[in-house]
Amino acid sequence: MAKLAFGKNPAVCAPITGRVRDEIIQECISIVAKRPDVIEWRADFFEGVRQPAQLIHVLTQLREVASGMPIIFTIRSIAEGGSLQQELTPAEELEIYTAVCASRAVQFLDYELAHSDEEIAQIRSLTQQYSVQLILSCHNFHETPGESWMQEKFVRALTAGADIGKVAVMPNTLEDVLHFLKALLIIEQKIDLPLIAISMGPLGAISRLFGWLFGSQLTFAVGEQSSAPGQIPIEDVRKVIEIAQKAHGLQRE
Amino acid sequence: MAKLAFGKNPAVCAPITGRVRDEIIQECISIVAKRPDVIEWRADFFEGVRQPAQLIHVLTQLREVASGMPIIFTIRSIAEGGSLQQELTPAEELEIYTAVCASRAVQFLDYELAHSDEEIAQIRSLTQQYSVQLILSCHNFHETPGESWMQEKFVRALTAGADIGKVAVMPNTLEDVLHFLKALLIIEQKIDLPLIAISMGPLGAISRLFGWLFGSQLTFAVGEQSSAPGQIPIEDVRKVIEIAQKAHGLQRE
Repeated sequence: MAKLAFGKNPAVCAPITGRVRDEIIQECISIVAKRPDVIEWRADFFEGVRQPAQLIHVLTQLREVASGMPIIFTIRSIAEGGSLQQELTPAEELEIYTAVCASRAVQFLDYELAHSDEEIAQIRSLTQQYSVQLILSCHNFHETPGESWMQEKFVRALTAGADIGKVAVMPNTLEDVLHFLKALLIIEQKIDLPLIAISMGPLGAISRLFGWLFGSQLTFAVGEQSSAPGQIPIEDVRKVIEIAQKAHGLQRE
Repeated sequence: MAKLAFGKNPAVCAPITGRVRDEIIQECISIVAKRPDVIEWRADFFEGVRQPAQLIHVLTQLREVASGMPIIFTIRSIAEGGSLQQELTPAEELEIYTAVCASRAVQFLDYELAHSDEEIAQIRSLTQQYSVQLILSCHNFHETPGESWMQEKFVRALTAGADIGKVAVMPNTLEDVLHFLKALLIIEQKIDLPLIAISMGPLGAISRLFGWLFGSQLTFAVGEQSSAPGQIPIEDVRKVIEIAQKAHGLQRE
């Protein structure tokens, strides 16, 4: 297994999906009380996402309320399931990500692998400048492509200099979930990159609870509001992980 | 899915593995307090297993202490992981099973598929006479044979007139566990027989927690003492099942 990206395996991450400042800060306060290991601000839900000044204002407050809990900053594109009104232009993205990194308020930045090599290289350079860890991510909300697709995505993330690779796919059958877990198990042994991998929806719930056993270092759980189909409450995810790890030394570490 | 064999899916079954009468009764009292759905008396652990009179004496007391909870009566052979001093002869088996069925103290009898067709037919006839449900079982403590092996065992159980088929195998890798779950999923859709299927040991723990999702109607959990490698405490198994079933309607029913 690649080195731990979040200090523990698995880390439990709760998304913040509020639309306005007060809502976002309140959500963060409620979530912090549940002690996830990481918080993800899904800024694509925020109405002021296109105004860097507003964004940084909220982010700075989030930083204080999170009281030391690491933050992943994410703007999910419409194409990959996000809540933007319309896609950001490359120029808007660069301005926003530069302001976010320069604010030194986040430890992790999520950026989609669907961007061009040049765009990714620019963001990689930016995150390195400010010591922000780069998560290169890829989402398929329709199906579960095979092992070679998944490996290709993670190899691309590694090659592009990601600190962490993330893939989320949608199962249409329980067999899809089993194939996904098997692919993850094989790829995780081959690639020296911390991975996050999720099989979404009700069918994929087993991957949110047991993905760590097959090589996924982080699982998303519901703090206040779910940000993707199939997410399970933080306290339930923790309970299952604790039971499974106690069950005769299931830990992989 | 075949009809429910235990009234709920999955049923949680706790084994009793005491060696002497007092120990067995005490164990049963402790286990009943934890409210499993079914109790299995692993009579191969009992020192008096070869004496039908002693056996029925203990069984009658168990029946009272279990206060209505259904009992599976099992003598596991040495060849399949049991705790006998030496294997029973066919004559001893017939005498014991006749006494057990006639006592009307048990709802289920576990009998191994490794017996000859004639032996199985004799036991099938006996259990029918006393309205005891017959579980035909098969155990491999060394490896996880493929889907065709598993299907062959369940087809043999169905053909021999079993009410329930049971297969327990040992994984040597996590991939074995995934292959096992996939085989179970496929076979369960093809065969009209209630199935119990377990992937044992620490690696297989996921099958004890999530096997119901793939078609196994009963999971063995630790009441007092584990009877096979990898068993998890009753309360933990129940908690995980509850969380998973709550997670966005994971129930298959």
